[in-house]
Amino acid sequence: MDDSDTRRGSPAAHRRFAALHRGNRWLGSPEDFGVAGAILAGDLCLSWCDELYAGAGLPADRLLAGRAVFDRMRTELMCGQYLDMLEQVIAVPSVERARHVILFKSAKYTVQHPLLLGGTLAGASPELLATYAEYGRALGEAFQLRDDVLGVFGDPGTTGKPAGDDLREGKRTVLLALTLDRCSPAEAALVGRSLGDTHLDAAGVDRLREVITDSGALDAVEEMIDELSRRALSALGPVDDPARSVLEQLVAAATARDL
Amino acid sequence: MDDSDTRRGSPAAHRRFAALHRGNRWLGSPEDFGVAGAILAGDLCLSWCDELYAGAGLPADRLLAGRAVFDRMRTELMCGQYLDMLEQVIAVPSVERARHVILFKSAKYTVQHPLLLGGTLAGASPELLATYAEYGRALGEAFQLRDDVLGVFGDPGTTGKPAGDDLREGKRTVLLALTLDRCSPAEAALVGRSLGDTHLDAAGVDRLREVITDSGALDAVEEMIDELSRRALSALGPVDDPARSVLEQLVAAATARDL
Repeated sequence: MDDSDTRRGSPAAHRRFAALHRGNRWLGSPEDFGVAGAILAGDLCLSWCDELYAGAGLPADRLLAGRAVFDRMRTELMCGQYLDMLEQVIAVPSVERARHVILFKSAKYTVQHPLLLGGTLAGASPELLATYAEYGRALGEAFQLRDDVLGVFGDPGTTGKPAGDDLREGKRTVLLALTLDRCSPAEAALVGRSLGDTHLDAAGVDRLREVITDSGALDAVEEMIDELSRRALSALGPVDDPARSVLEQLVAAATARDL
Repeated sequence: MDDSDTRRGSPAAHRRFAALHRGNRWLGSPEDFGVAGAILAGDLCLSWCDELYAGAGLPADRLLAGRAVFDRMRTELMCGQYLDMLEQVIAVPSVERARHVILFKSAKYTVQHPLLLGGTLAGASPELLATYAEYGRALGEAFQLRDDVLGVFGDPGTTGKPAGDDLREGKRTVLLALTLDRCSPAEAALVGRSLGDTHLDAAGVDRLREVITDSGALDAVEEMIDELSRRALSALGPVDDPARSVLEQLVAAATARDL
């Protein structure tokens, strides 16, 4: 669920449809055609994920049990995406709201629900599913907080994103809400001016990084990540190897400071 | 699958989300927020139609058999919508291509596949399903051709659309492709200038209607509708009452010159 199309080698769907329109010298706006084509491609994929699920070849009773998780996962993801849209347009940032976005848009979708879905399809016990739910939520939140830190402080060579990319995009994250909670009015005004400026240069990125670090927000997010990682690991109590060690490795990989 | 939001009492989703944004004086563009919100609402509905299907309470083997129809219906609808997008931007109109759009976007989605889905879920025989397929395709095409005629010649009092609405929208229909095939170069130039002009006045609509009628395109489409309606009715040969009379009434209702 990343709107940026600068992070991968090939352009996003709407750019490809727009380029097709332009190359063929079709009538009307290439951009409008691009957006409409991308929406349809997304709709097709959304339909096809149902086909894949229904046609996975698993027993009907398992598919039916998993269906509840699958349905909830999609609905909550879309609601999380809407919460994120709201967060980007509401003038007053809020740490609590930003964490809520992380929970629904990232934690549940990237870790918790996939794990619960796999467990349910495999016939896991209610106790094991409760363990997965706790582990998945904590790791999912930690993973997104790490991603937010890397979006501001990450090395372009390892993240594959331009330095300070999230700042230029104007992404309103927990890291940023914490910064605005703690910094001076003058610093808040600087953040307000610079955030979302697509032409922000390296010096501008550095100034914002300084405000974020000096406010203590970076340390606070690192503490959250540590605390959530510990919570994820301790939730694994009743899980046996080999699952246990794989899930432990996942915590390390998903929250590492260097990719 | 109608992009217009002037035809109903309440505004389309993207307008409502934009109005919400405007009313709250949120940051950024109300229009962008509106489009993003509408896309998400559409995605939610697409997910929920799967939930409704899977949770319909029908026997698992029936649902599985119907799934093939359901999946094909959605994929072909989206491909039909893309064909329609292409038809709107390709400079040279084509009767053949416009009929192809009707087949995939309208005939299959509005009549053929729903009937096949219901028949499959109810355990209809292959022979009866073949009958439904023939009936549904013919009636679906006739229905869309009638809708295209009403979009140009319909009475606003009964259609609920402004007079000549499809002309202002610039909709490239079979009716229009036939007109351009048959009219003079001067008339074709007039159509080219007026079609899609959102400010087209009543006199402009009347001039276009005249070109369409004088070219013989209107008569040709009426003949197609008659021929398709006859084909739909004669396909019903093996169907017994009460289904037969209901399906016969549907032909009359869906192709009537007056709503």
